Amino acid sequence: MVKGSRATIELIEIPGQPVFISLATAITRDIERGRLKPGDPLPGTRALAKILKIHRNTVDAAYHELTMQGWLVAEASRGTFVARDLPVLATTAASLPPAMRPAAARTGTPPPPLLRFSDGVPDPRLLPHAELARAFRRSLSTPAFLASDGSDDPLGSTALRAALAGYLSQERGLALSEDDIIVTRGSQMALFLAASAILAPGQAIAVEEPGYPLAWRAFRAAGARVIGVPVGAHGLDVERLAAVLAREPALRAVYVTPHHHYPTTVTLGAGHRLKLIELARRHGLAIIEDDYDHEYRFEGRPVLPLAARAASGTSVVFVGSLSKLLAPGIRLGYAVAEAGVLRRMAAQREAIDRQGDLPLEQAVAALLRDGELGRHARKARRIYHGRRDHLAAELRRHLAAELAFDVPAGGLAIWARARGGIDTIAWSAAARRAGLEVRPGAAFCLDESAAPQAFRLGFANLNEPEISRAVKMLKRTRPATAR
Amino acid sequence: MVKGSRATIELIEIPGQPVFISLATAITRDIERGRLKPGDPLPGTRALAKILKIHRNTVDAAYHELTMQGWLVAEASRGTFVARDLPVLATTAASLPPAMRPAAARTGTPPPPLLRFSDGVPDPRLLPHAELARAFRRSLSTPAFLASDGSDDPLGSTALRAALAGYLSQERGLALSEDDIIVTRGSQMALFLAASAILAPGQAIAVEEPGYPLAWRAFRAAGARVIGVPVGAHGLDVERLAAVLAREPALRAVYVTPHHHYPTTVTLGAGHRLKLIELARRHGLAIIEDDYDHEYRFEGRPVLPLAARAASGTSVVFVGSLSKLLAPGIRLGYAVAEAGVLRRMAAQREAIDRQGDLPLEQAVAALLRDGELGRHARKARRIYHGRRDHLAAELRRHLAAELAFDVPAGGLAIWARARGGIDTIAWSAAARRAGLEVRPGAAFCLDESAAPQAFRLGFANLNEPEISRAVKMLKRTRPATAR
Repeated sequence: MVKGSRATIELIEIPGQPVFISLATAITRDIERGRLKPGDPLPGTRALAKILKIHRNTVDAAYHELTMQGWLVAEASRGTFVARDLPVLATTAASLPPAMRPAAARTGTPPPPLLRFSDGVPDPRLLPHAELARAFRRSLSTPAFLASDGSDDPLGSTALRAALAGYLSQERGLALSEDDIIVTRGSQMALFLAASAILAPGQAIAVEEPGYPLAWRAFRAAGARVIGVPVGAHGLDVERLAAVLAREPALRAVYVTPHHHYPTTVTLGAGHRLKLIELARRHGLAIIEDDYDHEYRFEGRPVLPLAARAASGTSVVFVGSLSKLLAPGIRLGYAVAEAGVLRRMAAQREAIDRQGDLPLEQAVAALLRDGELGRHARKARRIYHGRRDHLAAELRRHLAAELAFDVPAGGLAIWARARGGIDTIAWSAAARRAGLEVRPGAAFCLDESAAPQAFRLGFANLNEPEISRAVKMLKRTRPATAR
Repeated sequence: MVKGSRATIELIEIPGQPVFISLATAITRDIERGRLKPGDPLPGTRALAKILKIHRNTVDAAYHELTMQGWLVAEASRGTFVARDLPVLATTAASLPPAMRPAAARTGTPPPPLLRFSDGVPDPRLLPHAELARAFRRSLSTPAFLASDGSDDPLGSTALRAALAGYLSQERGLALSEDDIIVTRGSQMALFLAASAILAPGQAIAVEEPGYPLAWRAFRAAGARVIGVPVGAHGLDVERLAAVLAREPALRAVYVTPHHHYPTTVTLGAGHRLKLIELARRHGLAIIEDDYDHEYRFEGRPVLPLAARAASGTSVVFVGSLSKLLAPGIRLGYAVAEAGVLRRMAAQREAIDRQGDLPLEQAVAALLRDGELGRHARKARRIYHGRRDHLAAELRRHLAAELAFDVPAGGLAIWARARGGIDTIAWSAAARRAGLEVRPGAAFCLDESAAPQAFRLGFANLNEPEISRAVKMLKRTRPATAR
């Protein structure tokens, strides 16, 4: 116990790490565990050094590190305090690709970034925390939860499916009932289950390139081959898809993000939509439509999904995410599919995961039903609209010579193309060393050698001061050739 | 609106069902939706009959049915009320196997059972609801949650892995750190990931027969072949496993439930354990050890897992379940494995599911860390001990002529063998028609024709009056040949 503050800090040295890092880690753990609360004073550096029998400079270094990361705030002549407004920070080590992260996290290198342009996630700080927690508490005493013996419907809670059916009918022009929907662990599981249900091992699925690498991983985990099709100014190049079809008899499905193409954010044009549906119908190609951030449309009206337009002869699996509406740490997605596909998806889901978390599904169903989630979406859309415009303004102000972009009509990221052949891989590596994580075009390509020189800059989970800082870090770390 | 009570009951006739069932269904729906709350008075039978224009006997029959099921309570001269203490009841249609359930649930047949001998799940009514809800609420404002961008560690939250490492080191004799653990969606996902990491498609895994069919589904979903090995009085027959090994070069793994064999509850004997480990070492066979209800040991001390004994040359993936400690509707499991296997499991997990639900994982970590879960386990063990003894007494009293069993030293089910060749499939079908769900031996076998005539009778999620009612229903429905 350190005198002069309420804090008790126990230093456990992490092998192979400098002592100040071990101390910083101990302090962040105490904050995460709630032992140190926002606004709490930290012990003076001299007092803590004495008690822990370490050099005062070491305590200083730990406090400095955490102040830089935003965990602590130093106030002149008053001392050091736990920040009241804890920042968007990686608390686990992060690097690309994510699958490689555990080992890296274990060895403690690279250090976590100070700021991160996400791939386009919402801001968990905006979540209606109290309402969600209350709904969760209530659902722990519903008869459905109390009667659950772990063999509930692998399609997910009836309450959530019914609420989703209502929501999607109203918002996406899909005429649905709860029997047409499977609730999944984020859209990731929906993609895996859809591919497992549609494709036999060795069959192929066409994907947009650049595109969404985690979808490719889901499809490969389901035993499918993944074939890239180029993306133009209006989304997937349907002519090129037709050419691939002509030479690939094993091609049985196509994966598209027509509303806001991932990563470039363009919307698939109306003519392309019709051509794609017609091509799919003619060749018996299943369409997996990933409508991952439909809610976030800032200009004009959202475009109706392919699933709402496709003729009855076309098999569309429509995939969506509630994580984009709530927070990325809450893993809820869903898929809408025809009965046979849905049944196969449910059987596979049961084999790998049995069923979802009933209390969470029921809680989110309640928020959807009583309009809380709709109110939240409207508020979030307003805020993200402001953040989008702020990022666009900052990029124009600081990086107009290096980056070109169109302000996207929707979605939670700006696709910024590097001018004059700037190497965005080198740039992102330099940014990473300075503490800014940013994804270059190569992160979204099957064939990195043909990757566009660009960045996907997710803006929604950063507030305006954070966006300004991130743009400045990006500017500071641009390659010398570009200066 | 029915006068004299706050209840509004709308009767929607279910085609093909007697009117009293439609009415009973409407009332349970109103209770589930919260329109009728625990303790609320129901309308008088005469008044309700008049308003709904049905016969008073029909209302009587519906009330009677729901009183038998425990939804309603009749109080002499005061009337009928919604029960204050709602029972363990299936609120969704249920039948075996679960994968077939959605369609059945949709058509509304068969009607939900009134009571169910589960396969051995805990009682969600005992869960420390308030503590879990509070911990969940807190974890929605931790920096880890607020900073999550959906690309956290696929191994699971550091907080939960650290808490589990401490718990398993103390309770299971496993010397672990958080880096040796992956947190999964229930043990089901752990089994799927383990098989995916260990086996190449077409390779085989030996399983106990009778055994755990959902594990077989997980292994098959991972592309593996499943080969049954008989189980004797001391668990898996290791000699028979050796014989299978001799003729099956593709056999690369074995799945065992050594602590309480599923479904028969026997503990794998010490000699068999040593032989199994030695056989695995000699043939380079990986062991998947499913220690699904370790905590529930009523007599003697829990036996240490194989994973705590295996020499360093043997690859053991140790799988456990937090759902057995919490509630089956909360899907948290984990696996402990060597670094290479763990890395492959994490990569596959990321492909199919990305990561777990951070708020839930952090909440459970807090309960584990502050001892709440340990206290809950001790309390639950005491209660389940009583329920086990009560079921044993009731079986002896009512079904001694039909069923033989050993009182299990641990686990949440009694394995009751039918005497004199009674057909347990026919018996369970008759029980099902009367509203009791019970699983016959054939439900646990690859080869149903060789299935033991037995029942697995899970007792933990039924209280003592419910156990008594279930045993009476089982007695009432025994085949005529057995009377």
